[in-house]
Amino acid sequence: MRKLLVIGIGAGDPEHVTVQAINAMNEADVFFVVEKPGERRDLVELRREILARYVTNSEHRVVSVEDPERDRTAAAYTEAVEDWRRRRADVWGRAIADHLADGERGAFLVWGDPALYDSTLAVLELVRAEGALALDCEVIPGISSVQALAARHGVPLNRVGGAVHITTGRRLARGLPEDGADVVVMLDADCTFKQVDEPGAEIYWGAYVGTEDEILVAGELREVEDEIERLRGEARERKGWIMDTYLLRRSERR
Amino acid sequence: MRKLLVIGIGAGDPEHVTVQAINAMNEADVFFVVEKPGERRDLVELRREILARYVTNSEHRVVSVEDPERDRTAAAYTEAVEDWRRRRADVWGRAIADHLADGERGAFLVWGDPALYDSTLAVLELVRAEGALALDCEVIPGISSVQALAARHGVPLNRVGGAVHITTGRRLARGLPEDGADVVVMLDADCTFKQVDEPGAEIYWGAYVGTEDEILVAGELREVEDEIERLRGEARERKGWIMDTYLLRRSERR
Repeated sequence: MRKLLVIGIGAGDPEHVTVQAINAMNEADVFFVVEKPGERRDLVELRREILARYVTNSEHRVVSVEDPERDRTAAAYTEAVEDWRRRRADVWGRAIADHLADGERGAFLVWGDPALYDSTLAVLELVRAEGALALDCEVIPGISSVQALAARHGVPLNRVGGAVHITTGRRLARGLPEDGADVVVMLDADCTFKQVDEPGAEIYWGAYVGTEDEILVAGELREVEDEIERLRGEARERKGWIMDTYLLRRSERR
Repeated sequence: MRKLLVIGIGAGDPEHVTVQAINAMNEADVFFVVEKPGERRDLVELRREILARYVTNSEHRVVSVEDPERDRTAAAYTEAVEDWRRRRADVWGRAIADHLADGERGAFLVWGDPALYDSTLAVLELVRAEGALALDCEVIPGISSVQALAARHGVPLNRVGGAVHITTGRRLARGLPEDGADVVVMLDADCTFKQVDEPGAEIYWGAYVGTEDEILVAGELREVEDEIERLRGEARERKGWIMDTYLLRRSERR
């Protein structure tokens, strides 16, 4: 039996790391560092900084795992993602079989929380389903960018007794949920908030939240949407990538 | 100006605490410990354990703040909560004015994440709105019971490109969201999952997640709902209180 630790390391601030994550990192014999093609150097550096700061067990090994390319042009989104996950499972499974001995512990570090818009668990589930390796997975939760966003704006995600809907830009384009829930949007490359027609709605937006590049904007959606679009474009231009999230708060009386 | 730190301390496992929370706790001059009438001794003890374990700054003071009773019999839920919050704001505002000097830092510890189904931020906003005190609030996110639940079950909250709806038992009783989102339910005292009519749905349920009393059940909703109801009743009987959460995963092909 091989043990895998899937460790959430927070949204970008090295201080988001939990005591549980630090302890798990120090139990690992092998770190599997998944390198996505074209991954931002900043994130690679930040992950290295987190390891250097918290891992005191010097016995560990580091294995790079090169992720296959994903076809982002495919029309069928879900199928394209599933195919990509299967190819990743092949590569990850080989890396685990080659570098982690029976009885050892391997670790995968995940930005944010492994349970929210991250595919590490799904890919490892595929590796396990292949059946060639007996794997025991343990998940360590981490601070997600949603929580970091709410904290930096100093606002709750939900109102009294209200619901919170966490969704993607792609889904938001089809409209707000019908039950009046407030909405958190992740993975929105298209400023989909500009298409939202909801009088009185407020937006709490943040990019690179918790890092030194953090940008925050809050206000009435219609009043600040252009400013957010402009800041977002400029930041992406400057850094070469952007990671942003927002909360859409609907008008209190509806 | 008085500074207030609103610190998420995780869902019950002392190892959920983040490095950021530990640093914030060690900056505090005063801890305001809010004591709810009839609060569970276990939680009071656990909070004491977290402070004893992580706070190395021995210069701090601890101030107990006794929360007023909440009228749980009121028919108008939102109004009852709002009235209760105003009464709490009066008590908290007095405690802050009496025990935190200008230039000092006060800390409020919050179970889970201050942004999710917790009223600390809303009450402090009311204190600030009263205008008698100049307050600067900083929020430190924490691991929520939702994340702890997903981690212990080893499952993601969302499916590929899917949405996650976080709601209450009270709202779930009105039905599942229409867009097919998976649903996380908090604050459900009535086993509302038994009313959910969704063929093929699975449930991932947990009580006291992350503590030594943890109970986990997962399976097809119709097959395990009675077992969950039974375990929940027995646990509440045994401990005198229960804190549980669940994820309802809808059938993949709809």
